[in-house]
Amino acid sequence: MNFIEKVQKASLKNQSLLCVGLDPDPRRMPDHLKVYDFNKSIVEATSDLVCAYKPNIAFYEALGAEGMDALMRTMKIIPSDIPVIVDAKRGDIGNTSISYARALYDVFGFDAATVNPYLGFDAIEPFIQYSDKGVFILCRTSNPGAEDFQSLVCVYQHHTRPLFEVVADRANEWNTNGNIGLVVGATYPEELKLLRQQNPHMPFLIPGIGTQGGDMELTVRYGLSHDGDRAIINSGRQIIYASKGKDFAEAARKTAQILRDEMNKYRVAFQSKQS
Amino acid sequence: MNFIEKVQKASLKNQSLLCVGLDPDPRRMPDHLKVYDFNKSIVEATSDLVCAYKPNIAFYEALGAEGMDALMRTMKIIPSDIPVIVDAKRGDIGNTSISYARALYDVFGFDAATVNPYLGFDAIEPFIQYSDKGVFILCRTSNPGAEDFQSLVCVYQHHTRPLFEVVADRANEWNTNGNIGLVVGATYPEELKLLRQQNPHMPFLIPGIGTQGGDMELTVRYGLSHDGDRAIINSGRQIIYASKGKDFAEAARKTAQILRDEMNKYRVAFQSKQS
Repeated sequence: MNFIEKVQKASLKNQSLLCVGLDPDPRRMPDHLKVYDFNKSIVEATSDLVCAYKPNIAFYEALGAEGMDALMRTMKIIPSDIPVIVDAKRGDIGNTSISYARALYDVFGFDAATVNPYLGFDAIEPFIQYSDKGVFILCRTSNPGAEDFQSLVCVYQHHTRPLFEVVADRANEWNTNGNIGLVVGATYPEELKLLRQQNPHMPFLIPGIGTQGGDMELTVRYGLSHDGDRAIINSGRQIIYASKGKDFAEAARKTAQILRDEMNKYRVAFQSKQS
Repeated sequence: MNFIEKVQKASLKNQSLLCVGLDPDPRRMPDHLKVYDFNKSIVEATSDLVCAYKPNIAFYEALGAEGMDALMRTMKIIPSDIPVIVDAKRGDIGNTSISYARALYDVFGFDAATVNPYLGFDAIEPFIQYSDKGVFILCRTSNPGAEDFQSLVCVYQHHTRPLFEVVADRANEWNTNGNIGLVVGATYPEELKLLRQQNPHMPFLIPGIGTQGGDMELTVRYGLSHDGDRAIINSGRQIIYASKGKDFAEAARKTAQILRDEMNKYRVAFQSKQS
């Protein structure tokens, strides 16, 4: 089973578009709790509510060897039918990207990874070649700085288009294995809408709801494919830091449930409009 | 002493523009040699010939926990007056980039890091804020895929300019701490020349000579600042894999010496032309 099938199966089973971001920050976690134990509690409390998990590897690297070990151990306790997308935003010259792909897919065993397009095709190709794994190319990110370069108007095939649209276009061209998706931030709903129109079948990984301020209704309405799927909507801090007390896992579950149900409500509205 | 001063001091002491890329690949190393022991031998054989070392973290990540441990231990045996630039090409939304900067500067103790500009200012800002550390922004990379997006002609301040020039321009604007440099590949000499004209004082980290095919003479002539410095010219595979036999360290030293001397020859020619 490839990544796309795995995420669709999990999404169907748990009736969920929700991806939980596993981004442990000890200063925001309950006191004295280890990262692995924190993750374990969060996963146990939410794994029947999600279509995927998304650990951002930066939070583990910041904790050194202990953090990386916690991430490796976390991988072992996530149920095998729930895909794990590592948010790593990697990309390097071909020879080096081979090592990154190997680290993320072989050493850690992630089902999908986010990659950065700035270095072009040979930086992404080693990831694409793992045809059963997913590759999410950063297209329109959720942060304020996304405007700096991604919005620049470029001359491309005799037309002018913003850089992020060119990235999406090239991503389609490179998608011979059918395993490429796009990262599109919820904080830019108009761009999300446009990108969905231009890329009707690609899986979108959509960060930016919750703490970053993206609107849930617009995210669902604009992010879903015509079939009402292919949107993986991430929420991290809002869920995992719902409480800093002993009830953090329970609070995370409650928040995850609310978010999942809200997404489903908008999904039903979307689907009834489609049909 | 900040990064720029440290690299200039090492460059002066060792009369060298050469940066050695510490990119261990067990399949190309002498049989049965551990990464740490390999690095230790390379460093001991070359540390009086270089202005910096540049480990690419991908090669360590691909080896899992053992690789990361080898990198951490390598940091401890590099002489303290030789700066270490980690090639990590990181970049994420502000909140996450803080973790990456912490991992690279605080946990590992690198003197400088490479970062990817695609996410814009808030992805780079946490790195810049470490004012004694160096931040090399990917501008024009050395790989074939560099053409895919970096060469796109963009509309910027009422003119049209390739994306990589816009990146350099913004990098200058963001350089309030004076710790930003650019990554400019030796494989695109005309772009290197142009970027040096447009950015006379910025340190350039220049990969791509040797295995990747960049021309040494043009790299030195076009890469140096008016003062004949601020070019950090990287060579990795050509040096560290000069031999796969027991003489690998000796062979690495010989190659490093040849490259350093060749760079100095072109530097002298450049300087006599300047004066």
